[in-house]
Amino acid sequence: MKLSLMYSYLNTDLAIIEKELEASIKGNHPVLQQAGLHLLQSGGKRLRPVFVLLGGKFGDYDINVIKNVAVTLELIHTASLVHDDVIDDADLRRGKPTIKAKWDNKIAMYAGDYILGSSLEIITKLPNPLLHKLLAHTIVEVCLGEIEQIKDKYRFDQNLRCYLRRIKRKTALLIASSCQLGAVAADVPTEVHKKLFLYGYYVGMAFQITDDILDFTGTDEQLGKPAGSDLMQGNITLPVLYAMKNESLKQQIVQVSERTTAAEIKPLITAIKQSDAIKQAEALSNRYLEKAYKILGELPACRARNTLYNVAKYIGKRKF
Amino acid sequence: MKLSLMYSYLNTDLAIIEKELEASIKGNHPVLQQAGLHLLQSGGKRLRPVFVLLGGKFGDYDINVIKNVAVTLELIHTASLVHDDVIDDADLRRGKPTIKAKWDNKIAMYAGDYILGSSLEIITKLPNPLLHKLLAHTIVEVCLGEIEQIKDKYRFDQNLRCYLRRIKRKTALLIASSCQLGAVAADVPTEVHKKLFLYGYYVGMAFQITDDILDFTGTDEQLGKPAGSDLMQGNITLPVLYAMKNESLKQQIVQVSERTTAAEIKPLITAIKQSDAIKQAEALSNRYLEKAYKILGELPACRARNTLYNVAKYIGKRKF
Repeated sequence: MKLSLMYSYLNTDLAIIEKELEASIKGNHPVLQQAGLHLLQSGGKRLRPVFVLLGGKFGDYDINVIKNVAVTLELIHTASLVHDDVIDDADLRRGKPTIKAKWDNKIAMYAGDYILGSSLEIITKLPNPLLHKLLAHTIVEVCLGEIEQIKDKYRFDQNLRCYLRRIKRKTALLIASSCQLGAVAADVPTEVHKKLFLYGYYVGMAFQITDDILDFTGTDEQLGKPAGSDLMQGNITLPVLYAMKNESLKQQIVQVSERTTAAEIKPLITAIKQSDAIKQAEALSNRYLEKAYKILGELPACRARNTLYNVAKYIGKRKF
Repeated sequence: MKLSLMYSYLNTDLAIIEKELEASIKGNHPVLQQAGLHLLQSGGKRLRPVFVLLGGKFGDYDINVIKNVAVTLELIHTASLVHDDVIDDADLRRGKPTIKAKWDNKIAMYAGDYILGSSLEIITKLPNPLLHKLLAHTIVEVCLGEIEQIKDKYRFDQNLRCYLRRIKRKTALLIASSCQLGAVAADVPTEVHKKLFLYGYYVGMAFQITDDILDFTGTDEQLGKPAGSDLMQGNITLPVLYAMKNESLKQQIVQVSERTTAAEIKPLITAIKQSDAIKQAEALSNRYLEKAYKILGELPACRARNTLYNVAKYIGKRKF
């Protein structure tokens, strides 16, 4: 089943959110088109707004209130993508940046700041202090995750805990907050919105682990970039950590550096793909999904709960 | 009179704020030391916290409440300095960035994000929705100012309005917000905190214009960088705009580009310094200060009002 068909009953509300997203970045600043591009590129999926709306369905759902939470979380996600781009751009042009390339990066940095600022301006339409508190904490953690991701590049002595903490901050927390803050804005009782947070956290962890697996198993066409890009860029993901339990693979992996070429790394990517590492990573993703199903069982039965169940199932099976 | 002596009665409270500032960026993340450096470098002045405290003195002053506003505004200021550094670093190393230099810039970008996030986490300790709303709007405007500053570099066809809008966003708004939000946190009546905002805005405009004048009239030692650095980096400030009314100066100014060397620009800096432009810029700064004095006259008489008067007077006379 296609992901978007699972929540087609949210389509009217998602269309409202889409319009507000467009309006929020249009403004009168031409430089923000770069940021706008990002919003359009990731268009359609809108995972975070979907989670916000589904969280809201557990309580007093009012689209005119909840849309502000959905737009805010999608904008925060977008801002982080724009800043990630600054990092990636710099790498792609390593050693030979053009003035124009650097100019764009500077603009991108401030554009990211601007989008983050805009998201805050939208959320302040809602006077709920808990909302602001949880959101501010999430932003701090996401930023720490970004710093860690750079710090941990090419650090082959990192352990599983290090990886899990990083993807928690990088991905899972924003999904968890989407589920929770949608519920908070709908005045859902504390014990319910805390469980929705946990559901989002587990699903977010499985989502990122699956992403990291697909970077090895996907085709270049499916991924829109060469398979193995993560390792090539020094990002040590779960399959790599598991593969390093094999002494021969470990020997090859620790050789990877900023000077490694795509051609040089290809045999290693194939070896990791054919090792047990992928299966082990899938097993951990499945354990997180099991936890997500379990916590859903403790939530009030409703249509949104069924959808959350299906979304979790989809994430476990997606191929790209 | 030394600036800090004007508000020595705030010293105990400023010491509390200093401690909270240190604690807020220490954390357990070594990469944040770079950001910490910035806080220490600008140490002592703490203009924004001073304005916050003075704003608060017009109402129900509680240091345990108001310190959060002061720390938040100083952190937002710091975050913007850290991001400005990314821009400046890149320029200094134009054409030949080292891996290390780029690495630092990436970390600096995320460190700025982190500091901004931390500031939000602190302000959410206060449940006042107006505070959050005004603050979010200020952040958006400051970001727009940063984008504009890059966009407007080397754009010699810009007019006075363009410059004024830019320094409003870049400097004056954060000072205006400091005065106002300190007052809002102390439950000052609307008509009073709006006037405090205006006072801060006028003083902030005069402050930045003075800064832009000093970039021409200060010695290299006073400035800690070569005089004329602004124009050298393509920043068109008020003295430059006034100097361009002189056709011969204009001819030279529009030749300035990214390829202009320090030696080449020196005679031009001297010519601008000796022209009427400096006096004209001082006159505009004084007009803003007059407006600041006038609005102070409409505020309730109190010790804080006297201090705000003295601070404005100091800003008009400072030599570096």
